[in-house]
Amino acid sequence: MNDLIQTMLSHRSIRVYQEKKIPPEMLEQISRAACSGSTMGNMQLFSIIMTEDKQKMREMAPYHFNQSMATNAPLILTFCADFNRFNRYCACRGCETDAYDNLQSYHWAITDALIAAQNACVAAEALGLGICWLGTITYQSEAFIRVLHLPERVLPVACISMGYPAEQPEMTDKLPIEALIHREIYEDYTPTRINKLYAEKEKHPNTLNLLKENNAENLAQIFVNHRYVKKDNEHFAEQLLASLKKQKFMK
Amino acid sequence: MNDLIQTMLSHRSIRVYQEKKIPPEMLEQISRAACSGSTMGNMQLFSIIMTEDKQKMREMAPYHFNQSMATNAPLILTFCADFNRFNRYCACRGCETDAYDNLQSYHWAITDALIAAQNACVAAEALGLGICWLGTITYQSEAFIRVLHLPERVLPVACISMGYPAEQPEMTDKLPIEALIHREIYEDYTPTRINKLYAEKEKHPNTLNLLKENNAENLAQIFVNHRYVKKDNEHFAEQLLASLKKQKFMK
Repeated sequence: MNDLIQTMLSHRSIRVYQEKKIPPEMLEQISRAACSGSTMGNMQLFSIIMTEDKQKMREMAPYHFNQSMATNAPLILTFCADFNRFNRYCACRGCETDAYDNLQSYHWAITDALIAAQNACVAAEALGLGICWLGTITYQSEAFIRVLHLPERVLPVACISMGYPAEQPEMTDKLPIEALIHREIYEDYTPTRINKLYAEKEKHPNTLNLLKENNAENLAQIFVNHRYVKKDNEHFAEQLLASLKKQKFMK
Repeated sequence: MNDLIQTMLSHRSIRVYQEKKIPPEMLEQISRAACSGSTMGNMQLFSIIMTEDKQKMREMAPYHFNQSMATNAPLILTFCADFNRFNRYCACRGCETDAYDNLQSYHWAITDALIAAQNACVAAEALGLGICWLGTITYQSEAFIRVLHLPERVLPVACISMGYPAEQPEMTDKLPIEALIHREIYEDYTPTRINKLYAEKEKHPNTLNLLKENNAENLAQIFVNHRYVKKDNEHFAEQLLASLKKQKFMK
């Protein structure tokens, strides 16, 4: 196994951090890695907002549901799909700036932002830091837009907390890779195949603990009835659509 | 500088490949890296379709505008946002499956898919392979849905060609990282700042060549008037929205 790939295979989310700050030269390496990924037409359609200020972190924490990562990390990186900078450049050179106010532009920009985000994660882990994604970043975009002063054509799409780990969690149980990979065409999942692919996961100690905690009969119930319930998902979807429109990505 | 970070900093897109196939053990490492990234609630909401069959590649090539990467790569990986597998699992366990037919679910799934895609890219480059993203994957989603047999709740969101490089392009000119990074709050771009941040790029040999080729006065004109024009972008945006609806991500 290639050593570099080993870093990626060893990934686990870290939710509790030491108080120690990330040294500037480390942050520089992570930033450079984040900005070195592929980008649509070399337009570099993303921005990264670095939060180190504890007051700013406290302002954002409630919108991240006060998860530990949102309150005790020395650094939070918010990755934004950003067509504002490129549009301002176009305006400065006398070009029309209404070509990129649509969902296709958003797709380019979210892609650039997520490439940058994942590069930052791999770089941080290669340097011995721990990271965790905060899925909450899109639930109440409007709050983050306000707190981070984001103009139109900028939408937060990913959020990563980062720091020296203060915990050593086990690896997460994952589906076998043949569950995720298809050869030439998509092979849809029959009940027999689902049972086979989820068998290991369903008897994993992580799952058994979750079932006990949630008083549930199976993993599906935990998600559908407790964790990510229809009503909340649809509410957040409405908010996200409203933010896409407000930030000019849905003409 | 850390070796893995060095790999990321050395990234450049490779558009021409040797005929040599990627050995299975290498493909195994890339697949495992792709499937080891963070994923929303450990739901693993993505699928990867591997295309090695030349006939299948020829079927897809026109929808990638017959770019060299789409015709001469030994391997094309299409990354899909996928809520189908998880939904089928929920159905097999007797749960309702209408909780994840919305834009928030799509955001989770596209995030998982793009994390996997970027991990695959970093892994491939760590092994000495070259990669290139094909932004064309969302322009005519419906064609890829048909050719790859994608069911509802599966949408292709990223496409990577991969192989042994048969070219050694220069590094692409990029904006200085201070153009992309903001401290605590977003610092909007004044014309003075835009001029300063784009100065190096505008006098870069790559840019000067592009201006000559396109008979344009500045880089902005190339994008707005030639490469990504309003009419095309809006057309592709409509297609993408239609596919999001068709694949059940926009209830």
